[in-house]
Amino acid sequence: MVAALSASQRTRIRRLPEKQVDERSVLDAVLDAGLVAHVAVVDDDQPFVLPMGYARDGDRLLLHGSTGSRLMRRLAEGSRCCLTVTLLDGLVFARSAFESSMRYRGAMVLGRPTAVPEEHKAAALDLLTDHLLPGRRTDLRAHHRKELAATLIVELAIEEWSVKVSDGWPDDDPGDVDLPVWAGVVPIRTAYGEPLPAPDLRPGIAVPPYVTERP
Amino acid sequence: MVAALSASQRTRIRRLPEKQVDERSVLDAVLDAGLVAHVAVVDDDQPFVLPMGYARDGDRLLLHGSTGSRLMRRLAEGSRCCLTVTLLDGLVFARSAFESSMRYRGAMVLGRPTAVPEEHKAAALDLLTDHLLPGRRTDLRAHHRKELAATLIVELAIEEWSVKVSDGWPDDDPGDVDLPVWAGVVPIRTAYGEPLPAPDLRPGIAVPPYVTERP
Repeated sequence: MVAALSASQRTRIRRLPEKQVDERSVLDAVLDAGLVAHVAVVDDDQPFVLPMGYARDGDRLLLHGSTGSRLMRRLAEGSRCCLTVTLLDGLVFARSAFESSMRYRGAMVLGRPTAVPEEHKAAALDLLTDHLLPGRRTDLRAHHRKELAATLIVELAIEEWSVKVSDGWPDDDPGDVDLPVWAGVVPIRTAYGEPLPAPDLRPGIAVPPYVTERP
Repeated sequence: MVAALSASQRTRIRRLPEKQVDERSVLDAVLDAGLVAHVAVVDDDQPFVLPMGYARDGDRLLLHGSTGSRLMRRLAEGSRCCLTVTLLDGLVFARSAFESSMRYRGAMVLGRPTAVPEEHKAAALDLLTDHLLPGRRTDLRAHHRKELAATLIVELAIEEWSVKVSDGWPDDDPGDVDLPVWAGVVPIRTAYGEPLPAPDLRPGIAVPPYVTERP
């Protein structure tokens, strides 16, 4: 039933529709693999796109920001928004510029967010921490009341959405395949480096496994 | 002079303004390091954000897409747009959820794009190839006329912009620094894997240096 909602006129993919995947599980996998979403809202006739940390919780997406952020306030007011998550997976070297492309997974969710009420903010922040920094939460103190007051959290229902997966090979014109030109794919992945201790880290505190063994 | 243009009311950074950098050279460095921009336009009162390959050419940004793409057509018509490039550089593990954050570099350019006229499309596509796949162009055949006809290219002047660099350490409350919790940064970088030859690659064609030695 949820998947059927993905077929709205607005999120139907017109270009390269063979890349569209109508499976909610694929959408969830893309959303769960990303760290940063690009979220657009319109303010005074001008669209703005900002990168935001997010988390999926079942059929909703959680976004958080400062009460001082104008765009967060627009989201909290229920402005129409578009949340896009893009995972870049590779460069596709075709034998022509025209067919050169990228491997990627992309999710888009449209809707009007709603503000998460005060009494549910702490739980929502915990879900955000669990997504962005898995394992971290048990090491952190409770949220201070003034921190919660300074944070706006909005949720966006996953109702109108699309997901697109491009994972193929160069798709050259038959006339180009015999050209003496290398063709293939260079995979791209996100690599995590060695953890760098904060300058004010107290002595004797080991790097926890959830930091060194981040998937 | 160009840098002064970044101080428009719309792109002034309200949150954490100390992260804003008023230097055009920093903007250019961020734009030149990215592969994919997230571009927002408004269509029928709904903002849409799509990932797009792009290239900077001096004081303009070039975007290309299919003539069949509704969003490309909106851009070519001169719709107000927002182009955002985000480079995620690290996860910042602070001693509270509230201070946890990310290292990133982010650029935003606002404006109304214009369509690149037919006679300048080939040169613009070459600039896009040079940015996305440096070194590749000399190996590629000329564009076919029908390929150019099927491609829309728009340019967006770099006039109203902002750039933000977050490269710091956890900024914990003094009362939290003595907590027995690890704090620091996990760097993030984009890693390129071993090139994968296309299934239809003809024998005897070596992988070119611009593929193996991609910076």
